[in-house]
Amino acid sequence: MTMDTGIIFHPYLRPGRTAKQTFEWGVQTAIQADQVGITTMMISEHASQIWENIPNPELIMAGAALQTNNIKFAPMAHILPHQHPTKLAMTVGWLSQILEGRYFMGIGAGAYPLASYMHGIKNGSDTAFLNEMVRESLDIMEKIWKREPFFYEGKFWSAGFPEEEKALTKEDEQHKLANYSPYGGGFPEFAVTGFSYNSPSMKLAGERNFKPVSIFSGLDALKKHWETYSEANIKAGFTPDRQRHAVSQTVFVADTDAEAKKEVMEGPIGYCFNHYLIPIWRRFGMMDGFAKDAGIDPLKADLEFLVDNVFVVGSPDTVVEKLSALFEKSGGWGTLQVETHDYYDDPAPQFHSLELIAKEVAPRVKMPA
Amino acid sequence: MTMDTGIIFHPYLRPGRTAKQTFEWGVQTAIQADQVGITTMMISEHASQIWENIPNPELIMAGAALQTNNIKFAPMAHILPHQHPTKLAMTVGWLSQILEGRYFMGIGAGAYPLASYMHGIKNGSDTAFLNEMVRESLDIMEKIWKREPFFYEGKFWSAGFPEEEKALTKEDEQHKLANYSPYGGGFPEFAVTGFSYNSPSMKLAGERNFKPVSIFSGLDALKKHWETYSEANIKAGFTPDRQRHAVSQTVFVADTDAEAKKEVMEGPIGYCFNHYLIPIWRRFGMMDGFAKDAGIDPLKADLEFLVDNVFVVGSPDTVVEKLSALFEKSGGWGTLQVETHDYYDDPAPQFHSLELIAKEVAPRVKMPA
Repeated sequence: MTMDTGIIFHPYLRPGRTAKQTFEWGVQTAIQADQVGITTMMISEHASQIWENIPNPELIMAGAALQTNNIKFAPMAHILPHQHPTKLAMTVGWLSQILEGRYFMGIGAGAYPLASYMHGIKNGSDTAFLNEMVRESLDIMEKIWKREPFFYEGKFWSAGFPEEEKALTKEDEQHKLANYSPYGGGFPEFAVTGFSYNSPSMKLAGERNFKPVSIFSGLDALKKHWETYSEANIKAGFTPDRQRHAVSQTVFVADTDAEAKKEVMEGPIGYCFNHYLIPIWRRFGMMDGFAKDAGIDPLKADLEFLVDNVFVVGSPDTVVEKLSALFEKSGGWGTLQVETHDYYDDPAPQFHSLELIAKEVAPRVKMPA
Repeated sequence: MTMDTGIIFHPYLRPGRTAKQTFEWGVQTAIQADQVGITTMMISEHASQIWENIPNPELIMAGAALQTNNIKFAPMAHILPHQHPTKLAMTVGWLSQILEGRYFMGIGAGAYPLASYMHGIKNGSDTAFLNEMVRESLDIMEKIWKREPFFYEGKFWSAGFPEEEKALTKEDEQHKLANYSPYGGGFPEFAVTGFSYNSPSMKLAGERNFKPVSIFSGLDALKKHWETYSEANIKAGFTPDRQRHAVSQTVFVADTDAEAKKEVMEGPIGYCFNHYLIPIWRRFGMMDGFAKDAGIDPLKADLEFLVDNVFVVGSPDTVVEKLSALFEKSGGWGTLQVETHDYYDDPAPQFHSLELIAKEVAPRVKMPA
C-alpha cells in the first residue's frame, strides 16, 4: 500500500481577506485538488479565530459539491457542543446524500474556550463537561438518523422523531416524512483529531472505531497516537487499520530543495507561522515535541528550525526520502493531510506542490513491511 | 413603480427525488433565475415534509453564490427555535458577507409541530411558547452581530461574546477575533411570512419593521395583511412602503392561455397540488379564503377551480390583466414571489414562464395611483 494525499483547509488566510475571498478560495481549492487526485479535503470550523475564519465548513462543501467528482469532504470538525444535534444530524445527513457518500464527519468538543463562550458555555476549558455534551449529541444524532420514533429529554438538549402519520386518502402525501439520514442509510464515518502526546481523542477513536487523525506534533506523539488508538481499538473488538490513520503536516514540494525552502520561508506559509501558528503553538505547548525531537530549547524553535526539522519541504526526491524515514520510524499512515495556506493571490506554487505530492511523491511512499 | 419578480423555492419536488437532484435543481434554478432578471429567491427550511425537502436553504445559496450576480437570496424561513442563535447568527452573517449583501433573512417560529418535536419541542403547536423562543433568539443574534462583550443566560439558550485578548507581541495575531456580522456591519433585513386572515406575523412585521411576505390565500386576507402591517408599522414610528411587500403565488405563463392551463393541469404543478398542497391546504384551512372569494363550498375547490380562480395562469396579456385587477383591488405589492415546481426532468416550460413573467408581464403591472 502507498500513501494517499489529502488536504486540510483551516484556511490560514491572513486577516483582511473577505468572506467572499475565503469562500471562493475554498471552492477553488476543492476543485483543483479533485483534479490532481487529492482524495480528501478536511475543512475546519471556528467561531473565534480570524486566521481560521470558517464558521460553516458545510457551505464550502456545498459550493464545491457539483464541481467535484472524487474528492471526499469532511468537516474537521463540527463542534458538537455548539449546535442542536437534530439540526446538525439533518445537515450532515443531507450533505452526505448530496455528495452521494463523498463525506465523513469530523467531530470535536471545541478546543477554543472563547468559541465555547460565544455558544453559552462559560466553562469552555472543562473538557469533561464538553465531552459529556459530545456524548449526548452523538446519541441524539444516531437516533435521528435511525428514523425510529423516540423522544429524549437530555441534560443539554431534547430531541425526538415522530411516527409517520396515516394518509387521509390514497393519493395524499402530505404526511410523508423527509429522509435526512446519511447516504446509504447508516451512520457516517466519524473522525477525531488529536495532537497532544496523551491525546484522549485517540483513545476515544479506538474505543468507538472512529477514524484517527493526528495533527503532527513530533515523532513521539505520533507513535503514541497509534499505540493509544490501536490498543483501545483492539480492546473494543476491532482490528486497527493503518490505512484509516490520517496525519496532517506542513508539506511543500517544488522542483528543487532551494526553491521549496525559499517559498516556504518567504511566502504565505512563513507569514502565517510568524503571525499566527508559532505564537499559538507556543501557547498550547505544541513546540515541545518538535524541540524534543531535535534536542533544542522550545523557545529557540523559530520558522527556519521548523522548515528544516519539522515540516517536510524540498524537491520530490527529498520529500519522498523524508516521508519514508518518518514512515520507517512511525510505522506509517494512510493519508497525508497537507495543510493548505494563503495562496489566494497566486495559487500556482501551492497547486504545483499539491500536484507533485499527489503524483510524484505519494506513490513512492510505502507502508513499512 | 412596476412589480418585481421573485421566486420561492419550497421546492415541491415529488417523493423519490434524491438530495443531489434537489440540490442541483436549486442551484440550477438560482442561476437561470438570475439570468432572466428574477430579483429574489426565497428558499424554505423544513425538517419533516418530504414534499419540501430542504433542511438547509443556506447550502443551496452557497452552491449558487459564485455563479449568480444580482439575485438576492433569503431563507424563508430559518426556524429560530430549532437552532442555537449564536451558530445561526454566524452562518447568516458569514453567508451575507459571501453574497456581499445579496441576502435577507426570513425568520419563523416553525409551523409544523412534527418538525418542532424533532428539535425537542413537544408543545410545538403552542405559538406563544414558540414566539418566546423567537424573541430570545433574535435578541441573542443581535448581540452576537454587535460584537460587544456580553454573557446572557436565557430561558432557552445561553450565549456570549468575549473581549478581544491582548496581543503578546507586535506581530502576534492569534488573539484576533473573526467577524461574522452581516455584510455592511448592521443587521440583515428580516422578513416574515403570513397566510391566515388575522396573521400575527403581519403585526410583528409592522411593529419591528420587518419585510412582510404574504402567502396568497385570497383577496380579503391579502388586503387585511397590508392593513395589519401598515397600522402596526405606523404606530411603531415607521412609514409603510408597499414596495417591500412580497406576495407568493402560483403563477404560470405560456404563449397562449390554453397552453398555460394545460401545462398547469397536467404537469408538475397539478401533480403537486393533487398529492400535497390541496390536502395540506384543506388541513390548515387555506381553502376557505379562496372558496369565499368565489362563493363556493371549500370542499368543492379542486385543482381546476384553483387554476381558473386562484392561480394566475395564461398568456402574458391574460396574466398582466389578472395581476392588474388584483393590484387594483388590493393596492398592489412590490415583488411577486412565484412558486416554483418540479420541472427537474424538463426545465424549459418553467424557465420560459419565469422569463415571460420577468420580462413581459412584470414591467406592465403598475402600482395603483
